[in-house]
Amino acid sequence: MSSQGQNTGRRPELRHDPVANRWVIFSPARAKRPTDFKSKSPQNSNPGDNSSCPFCIGNEHECAPEIFRVPSDPNWKLRVIENLYPALSRNIEGPCEEKEDMGVPARAIGGFGFHDVVIENPVHSVHLCDMEARDIGQVLLAYKKRIQQIASVESIKYVQVFKNHGASAGASMSHSHSQLLALPIIPSAVSARFEGMNEYFKKTGKCSLWAHSSHFHEFDCDKMVELGGLLKLMLRKMSLQLNNPPFNFMIQTSPLQVKESELSYAHWFLQIVPQLSGAGGFEMGSGCYINPVFPEDAAKVLREVNLP
Amino acid sequence: MSSQGQNTGRRPELRHDPVANRWVIFSPARAKRPTDFKSKSPQNSNPGDNSSCPFCIGNEHECAPEIFRVPSDPNWKLRVIENLYPALSRNIEGPCEEKEDMGVPARAIGGFGFHDVVIENPVHSVHLCDMEARDIGQVLLAYKKRIQQIASVESIKYVQVFKNHGASAGASMSHSHSQLLALPIIPSAVSARFEGMNEYFKKTGKCSLWAHSSHFHEFDCDKMVELGGLLKLMLRKMSLQLNNPPFNFMIQTSPLQVKESELSYAHWFLQIVPQLSGAGGFEMGSGCYINPVFPEDAAKVLREVNLP
Ligand SMILES: Nc1ncnc2c1ncn2[C@@H]1O[C@H](COP(=O)(O)OP(=O)(O)O[C@H]2O[C@H](CO)[C@@H](O)[C@H](O)[C@H]2O)[C@@H](O)[C@H]1O
Ligand SMILES: Nc1ncnc2c1ncn2[C@@H]1O[C@H](COP(=O)(O)OP(=O)(O)O[C@H]2O[C@H](CO)[C@@H](O)[C@H](O)[C@H]2O)[C@@H](O)[C@H]1O
Repeated sequence: MSSQGQNTGRRPELRHDPVANRWVIFSPARAKRPTDFKSKSPQNSNPGDNSSCPFCIGNEHECAPEIFRVPSDPNWKLRVIENLYPALSRNIEGPCEEKEDMGVPARAIGGFGFHDVVIENPVHSVHLCDMEARDIGQVLLAYKKRIQQIASVESIKYVQVFKNHGASAGASMSHSHSQLLALPIIPSAVSARFEGMNEYFKKTGKCSLWAHSSHFHEFDCDKMVELGGLLKLMLRKMSLQLNNPPFNFMIQTSPLQVKESELSYAHWFLQIVPQLSGAGGFEMGSGCYINPVFPEDAAKVLREVNLP
Repeated sequence: MSSQGQNTGRRPELRHDPVANRWVIFSPARAKRPTDFKSKSPQNSNPGDNSSCPFCIGNEHECAPEIFRVPSDPNWKLRVIENLYPALSRNIEGPCEEKEDMGVPARAIGGFGFHDVVIENPVHSVHLCDMEARDIGQVLLAYKKRIQQIASVESIKYVQVFKNHGASAGASMSHSHSQLLALPIIPSAVSARFEGMNEYFKKTGKCSLWAHSSHFHEFDCDKMVELGGLLKLMLRKMSLQLNNPPFNFMIQTSPLQVKESELSYAHWFLQIVPQLSGAGGFEMGSGCYINPVFPEDAAKVLREVNLP
């Protein structure tokens, strides 16, 4: 967040995020600190090289196998493909292997899972926020369809949908895309979220988010275009206000293979994180983040952006 | 980790880290993925600008107030100073403020705490791994002394010691330094570690780390030089093998103000993390990390480094 409209003299505060179930430090003073490194710009100034991009239309043969495309003809608008360098492999049988490590039972399991890439657009230079709400809705529907396919595999416990935009947000490919990683375990941040949402309800009698819907992939097809429009609005506002920053978004949903009754207070949501300052040893060691901008100030700035 | 000596054909695996209490994906295939961004080098190629560095000897007046120096004369070898842009403030009285947020009680507390910088060396160009084991021991002793001072403040629940080396590891200053951040809360990663170590003992009857010592600041003064030598060895091996990568280290210790009996299976340790690939939306969303190098392979490579 730029320092525009901020009160950098405001006193720091620690706030507990009931959804992520962790403390965050808000400290406007941090925004003013200098750097003596020459080019520590978090800007997404690097446009990437499209001369031989495997994600561009016409280069389908350079990609790992396709799972589906929309529409299903040569003039596709989006494709879901296997990741050519997958973190987990769909070709490992049976996920479980118990191990011994120096006489102590170690929890290690074979890396079974699905790692897919969603190519959001056939054209290299078109970013998600440039697309029509309807077409962004199609991308969201593709996530839904793919999660529904994967949800039938019993050993898969969680599907993380995520997008990396810009090199400083971790992206290795510049062509607009996102990813799905389906895991045979429930990751720690997901369990923590789950507990946080339950605790919040117990303490306050209120939900930590909006009307009940535990899984993204159960979200109404009819509403996906509307959600696509909202996503477009937020991405455009962020891009204008923060000068096209690198960013990530994540669809934070509930674990699979869990009884509906246990999910009463669990809600899915879409989280967008602009990458403006990075993290360091403090965050890595403690799991606690330092944010120089109070959320109410960030919301105010975004509300005031006038879209052309 | 460079691809040297690795078997990138090895199948992926998920392993549970009992200390951090989270799953990690090991996937050698990930090491081979290409990038079309022009300069996504994680190298620490940026030497920083020392023309007006406040941490250099002679520029003490450009710094926030000093807490102590070693030795206590103008020819100091290290200084512990206040952070001029602190995340938490030592000037806020009483840490607690209860808040209401849209009719729901919100957990928010005033940002009371201590945020200090340890200037490890008076000379700009000298890095920690270039220093004598004895002088690195002095840095570790300075951490210990400062934690002991802070531990007497009742509302402080945890002290995170950390070092950022290189811009991609989050550093804003190139002069060799580390930081201490003393918090009025126990951060989530610390609670998770605590639970992980307890669970491991309950399940295996063995400790997850070495002989019992719950707090870094209770570590023997006599052993600090030895630890300094070990730290120097590891940093030099890492620097040689990985071409001076950006890195972080964290002293992972136990919460303060906790009964000794509750700390039976808690151990402090020093964690060193070279920053070679960064993270993306998957890690941010799930709290689960993807590592292309199996730990036994990394250990082998480091063991084989010949120091000149
Ligand atoms: N021809 C081809 N066919 C099919 N797939 C192809 C392909 N060529 C490349 N790919 C895949 O396309 C994906 C592109 O993904 P991103 O640019 O979002 O980041 P990446 O996954 O590399 O890593 C970032 O995200 C992950 C997860 O958050 C972090 O672990 C990591 O540190 C960060 O850099 C890569 O995963 C790559 O394997
Ligand atoms: N004259 C002066 N006197 C006293 N102190 C001075 C000073 N000039 C600068 N400082 C302080 O010196 C510190 C230098 O610290 P580092 O280079 O390790 O990274 P920094 O804390 O900026 O942020 C990194 O680490 C933090 C914590 O991990 C992350 O939040 C962040 O994203 C990452 O960039 C800064 O905290 C700065 O406030």
